[in-house]
Amino acid sequence: MTMAAVETERRPGMLDANARVTGRVAYAIDTRLPGMLHAKLIRSRSPHARIERIDVAAARAVPGVRLVLTGAELARLPGVDPRFGPVLRDQPLLAEEVVRFVGDPLAAVVADDPDVAAYAATLVEVDLADLPAVFDPVEALSPDAPVLHPAPARKSGMFRDVVVHNTANTNICNHFRIRKGDVAAGFLESDVIFEDEFRSPAVQHVPLETHVCLATWVDDQIVCHSNTQTPFVLRAQLAEVFGLPLTRIRVIVPTLGGGYGAKCYPKIEPLVVLLARLTGRPVRLQLTREEEFVTITKHAMVMRMKTGLRHNGTFVARETTGWFNTGAYADIGPRLIMYGAIGTSGPYRIPNLSADTYAMYTNMPPAGAFRGYGISQAGWATESHLDMIAERMRIDPLDLRRRNLLVEGDTFSTGEAVNNMHVDELLDSCADAIGWQAEEEPIRMGRVVRAKGLSLIAWRALPLAVSTAAAKLNEDGTLNLLTGSVEMGQGVQTALAILAGERLDLPLDQISVSCVDTDVSPYDQQTSASRSTYAMGGAILGAVEQIRDRLLDLAAEQLEAKRDDLELVDGAARVVGVPDRQLTYGEIVRAARAGNLFGNGRHRAAGALDPETGQTIADGPGHWHQAAGAAEVEVDLDTGRIRVLRYHGSVFAGRIVNPVQAELQTEGGITFGLGQALFEEMIYDGGQLQNGNLGDYMIPSVLDLPDGFDHTIVEHLEGGEIHGLGENSLPPVMPAIANAVFRATGVRITDLPLTPEKVLRGLRAQVQSSKP
Amino acid sequence: MTMAAVETERRPGMLDANARVTGRVAYAIDTRLPGMLHAKLIRSRSPHARIERIDVAAARAVPGVRLVLTGAELARLPGVDPRFGPVLRDQPLLAEEVVRFVGDPLAAVVADDPDVAAYAATLVEVDLADLPAVFDPVEALSPDAPVLHPAPARKSGMFRDVVVHNTANTNICNHFRIRKGDVAAGFLESDVIFEDEFRSPAVQHVPLETHVCLATWVDDQIVCHSNTQTPFVLRAQLAEVFGLPLTRIRVIVPTLGGGYGAKCYPKIEPLVVLLARLTGRPVRLQLTREEEFVTITKHAMVMRMKTGLRHNGTFVARETTGWFNTGAYADIGPRLIMYGAIGTSGPYRIPNLSADTYAMYTNMPPAGAFRGYGISQAGWATESHLDMIAERMRIDPLDLRRRNLLVEGDTFSTGEAVNNMHVDELLDSCADAIGWQAEEEPIRMGRVVRAKGLSLIAWRALPLAVSTAAAKLNEDGTLNLLTGSVEMGQGVQTALAILAGERLDLPLDQISVSCVDTDVSPYDQQTSASRSTYAMGGAILGAVEQIRDRLLDLAAEQLEAKRDDLELVDGAARVVGVPDRQLTYGEIVRAARAGNLFGNGRHRAAGALDPETGQTIADGPGHWHQAAGAAEVEVDLDTGRIRVLRYHGSVFAGRIVNPVQAELQTEGGITFGLGQALFEEMIYDGGQLQNGNLGDYMIPSVLDLPDGFDHTIVEHLEGGEIHGLGENSLPPVMPAIANAVFRATGVRITDLPLTPEKVLRGLRAQVQSSKP
Repeated sequence: MTMAAVETERRPGMLDANARVTGRVAYAIDTRLPGMLHAKLIRSRSPHARIERIDVAAARAVPGVRLVLTGAELARLPGVDPRFGPVLRDQPLLAEEVVRFVGDPLAAVVADDPDVAAYAATLVEVDLADLPAVFDPVEALSPDAPVLHPAPARKSGMFRDVVVHNTANTNICNHFRIRKGDVAAGFLESDVIFEDEFRSPAVQHVPLETHVCLATWVDDQIVCHSNTQTPFVLRAQLAEVFGLPLTRIRVIVPTLGGGYGAKCYPKIEPLVVLLARLTGRPVRLQLTREEEFVTITKHAMVMRMKTGLRHNGTFVARETTGWFNTGAYADIGPRLIMYGAIGTSGPYRIPNLSADTYAMYTNMPPAGAFRGYGISQAGWATESHLDMIAERMRIDPLDLRRRNLLVEGDTFSTGEAVNNMHVDELLDSCADAIGWQAEEEPIRMGRVVRAKGLSLIAWRALPLAVSTAAAKLNEDGTLNLLTGSVEMGQGVQTALAILAGERLDLPLDQISVSCVDTDVSPYDQQTSASRSTYAMGGAILGAVEQIRDRLLDLAAEQLEAKRDDLELVDGAARVVGVPDRQLTYGEIVRAARAGNLFGNGRHRAAGALDPETGQTIADGPGHWHQAAGAAEVEVDLDTGRIRVLRYHGSVFAGRIVNPVQAELQTEGGITFGLGQALFEEMIYDGGQLQNGNLGDYMIPSVLDLPDGFDHTIVEHLEGGEIHGLGENSLPPVMPAIANAVFRATGVRITDLPLTPEKVLRGLRAQVQSSKP
Repeated sequence: MTMAAVETERRPGMLDANARVTGRVAYAIDTRLPGMLHAKLIRSRSPHARIERIDVAAARAVPGVRLVLTGAELARLPGVDPRFGPVLRDQPLLAEEVVRFVGDPLAAVVADDPDVAAYAATLVEVDLADLPAVFDPVEALSPDAPVLHPAPARKSGMFRDVVVHNTANTNICNHFRIRKGDVAAGFLESDVIFEDEFRSPAVQHVPLETHVCLATWVDDQIVCHSNTQTPFVLRAQLAEVFGLPLTRIRVIVPTLGGGYGAKCYPKIEPLVVLLARLTGRPVRLQLTREEEFVTITKHAMVMRMKTGLRHNGTFVARETTGWFNTGAYADIGPRLIMYGAIGTSGPYRIPNLSADTYAMYTNMPPAGAFRGYGISQAGWATESHLDMIAERMRIDPLDLRRRNLLVEGDTFSTGEAVNNMHVDELLDSCADAIGWQAEEEPIRMGRVVRAKGLSLIAWRALPLAVSTAAAKLNEDGTLNLLTGSVEMGQGVQTALAILAGERLDLPLDQISVSCVDTDVSPYDQQTSASRSTYAMGGAILGAVEQIRDRLLDLAAEQLEAKRDDLELVDGAARVVGVPDRQLTYGEIVRAARAGNLFGNGRHRAAGALDPETGQTIADGPGHWHQAAGAAEVEVDLDTGRIRVLRYHGSVFAGRIVNPVQAELQTEGGITFGLGQALFEEMIYDGGQLQNGNLGDYMIPSVLDLPDGFDHTIVEHLEGGEIHGLGENSLPPVMPAIANAVFRATGVRITDLPLTPEKVLRGLRAQVQSSKP
């Protein structure tokens, strides 16, 4: 083997890396079907309004237009239950009587050509009568606020573990509670109590590939090509909307051009499937970038956090209330707030803890899953709050963190016993990397000042989710893996191939991993939550283990050896110590005339929680992700501009499956965090988005990366666990930078992003308060 | 349920019947990929020639042409082993130095547009230097005959059970032998000996959908969309040609627009895949109907059969030599001749048997699998021969058959013990249906004469072939079946769904059957040989059995009942006698948080044969198909025109799985037989096909069906076996009609088809021989 080949074998990167970088991967957006029609949506220009009139006559008259459908017409169609949503079925396929946000789809045009559809859509005349609107999640609680959904929506059949607490005639979509210890008593015991409020805005996921769906409906048999991260949820939801058995619905998902949570849960698919039914033709809808901004966002959040400590800096009690702006429709908001609440303790021992998180309906676009799912919001609060407390108590922030770290014997916010925690090591690696020194003064050079900041995050991985998988060993000894995990650039196919290859001692070029087709892929709950390498990896190993077992049985028979004397090495079964008594896997399969060897496996994550207290009630502890961050920033005191000079992220991997991909995921997560720390924000005026395009809405480029940009991936094999790395490095970024900015300037910014304007405003306030 | 629904439930026809008849099924021919190019082949106009010069300059200069490739260029490409074939790798992707039949592809054009490709192909200038050619399989044996393949071709890695006996510098592609008893001694013991020769021509399969392939090649990852009946053979063959592991090759096969054997084994796919590699783009090639005629045919055959009997009409010995014209390349000819030999004993007790069948190379298009695979040729001989013997011995043909029928205790031509034979019943049902009477005289009405004929066939189903399958029970209790069987209109998906549904007591609308994608479909050797309902059905039942087992375990736990007290009824597990203690399958899967329940199964057909003697050597008896036919014909003595007034086919089904489909397959097979009996024939002059289009080559229409057109499908459940019905009804048709024509006219035609010209010629010969 050449050195390059050895290096490739050790550090395989991604199986299809070459095809990706040369533009030859077929994404969902590339799928075409003969005779397909093209859809275009007509969307609300008002944040909240009654639909008075829709005149589609001119649009229908355009040559090439096959169908114009309004929400009112849709609601009268037989065989369609016209509302969807993964937890609550509150989102209409098309708005019927009321539109609830700017961008809410209220009619659809289907035409032979996408340009014709777009043109005809401009001819649809819509009269809207504005209603009062509410945009802020806290204001949405007010008795004067307009109520978006007066009657609570029905639950869908999925996510039965999410218990919804909502109230009629309010905007509370869901309320989740943590109740641990006795918070009131804890505050009485505390020597000092601090209370702060934090905000973080809605931001965009910006996958390169926008949402796309291409569907056919032939004789109640649906085929839905989608770039969803949740094919099996989509299948179940289509079954609900159209009242069909799951076997009538086939969801096909090729490689995605990015997801980051944006493509979790049904979005445009139920409508596109319906349009295919009505036209009797394949129908395709691809959203524009502008439409992405009104399709799904990260949850904006307001969080009030009150913490009591002893004089020695140990936490005694914390009480948190967080309002997550879930927008006009619930999407996964009702579940996401669980993570917001669980995250309010961070990786710290807080014996008395209460958290109330709310998913609030407002007249904003729906918010949903976003890389860092609830934790990047909660972590923004907890780690800013911690540094603010440290400052007030004159304790070094690193020291304050160390004094309170969870150790074996403690319990997490959910009451689960602490296990396999390495936050001390993560924190140390970050502090070391950045050269943290207690009581280090900022370095001032002219009108520029430098300082450092830290942060530390821990959160619980998705509980109860199930992954199943299958594998087949072919007649030449190569291996096909069948998985419901969606490849979206995160490298899940490569990771699964590595795991299977190790167990069977097969090189990677002998292994192929399928994309998802719900007709044949074994069930997987979803590709999200950094869960696939861990959970689908477990299922794959189960499947491969069955094949291994069968191989050993057959080889023992064919080699006339004891099974215990056999080993599987380099694609062959051999008698230990007798190198020429061996059979390759292909020889074994062919000699057995088996066709192939087939195996299947399953992985189920533990950890149900009591819906009243958020405390663990069943089947063992969950699996906690852990990450730290350290930033060194330079702030220009004249312009307020923040430059991140150095950033070090540390994440816990359990076991690193694919080093290249682990590094890239960690760097990618930090890059997302840099954008959210410094400039990413959807800016609204009266519910109207002001920067809904990639000219005005910035995401980080390579020029935004710090010169010092590195990370530590901590590996501990003894726990036997794999920790997904899709999200971990993101949440620490924003508080680490904010904490550094504070240490550099004394300006504490509690609402993201950390814009120059806010820095200057803070500096100006210092000057004014220091005036006599 | 309405009566119509009850009827549908009992007689489901095909799952997708409605989509089929309304033109909304997506066939392979409908697949398109963005950016695809289109190929066109340049073919030889000479039956045998040396390629002197190919000038592609003018073709390459056509705007839109991406590639023009000649066989000589192809042979020099690295990474391509440029010959293919399922048994013998004798067929070049493009002819290199020599063309071997009229239609042999020698160059390919790839262009942006199919019309551009077709135009450019006309500009390729080819100079050929004719070589001596041979067309007849017997003449091909002559020492003077040109030898098509002087060096025997390498064996492919597939069909290892086919032992090839061929000789360098001859046109013998393969030679198969049956040696049973002592034939020489048998003839010495015989009282009478008769010898006859029979011929049958090449005919076309005529699936509505012609061969099509659309392939991509990205970084040594091949995706091949093909309408093949043998996706796993194609995968293995592409692996051989391109030196890749099987996991680098994905063969996707949607529903086919008919197959009948034409789409068994690779045809255009290796070349199309190569063209995709060379252009870096998806490449599509769809053959025209004219090209179908030079792509694959039924084997023309010459068979000499010599039979010795006692005076009482019992068979003592038979010696047969058959020459099957396999054309210029072997395709599956080397295996097909086994069936030709096995079929020479028919369903009769012939203690001393010898058969030699040869696959002969000639300068004709390749011949391959065809509905009735070798048996419709051998059966033509055996059943014509039997009636000719009956006539000479003055024994009633029905009686002669009955005297020699195999019964329990006998052995088949392969030495296997007779089991589960019902030919007596089939023969009786045919004789009864047609009103057979011994010594019945033909009925003469003016210049028209009527009479009846019989035939009886038995042959061995494909041995050793493996089918594997998987099934998953979804979270709503519906079932997806994963199978490598190709749906080509024969209804295999419906048959498999019925079998699975019965075992799980699930209605058909809760079951979905996948098409083939070799990346995820469990291995299946091939969809041919009437084997899928039997073999894949067995594999599906194995998979479903695992699910049933798991369901019962889980239900016992969830219902707190003994497993033995449970029954699975109507999609639910229930405690026998306690109707309200029950859980639906969906409830069981969801309560277990199992995601889905997955099972897999396997079926392997028995019956290896000794390559020297054709006698069974291993693992139990095969499975013998059985069929009879009876015809009543009317012959016009002036025109020679034959009208079939009545035809009755009787087939043995073991167990009828889907009555509608069983009937349609039986009627379809008879219809094929009517065409082959009366008019189907590829007519050649010097290797040039004279009727290579559907204007000149006729297939039967509804107007060709007899007024009396019926059948008997004999069911015997006690054997527990399912007998595929895809081919059974075809082979008896031709001899039954020929025997009736003889009884009507005294004209014995031994070469198919039974044209008016041959009848008239026979009548004229009678007149001349009766002249003094």
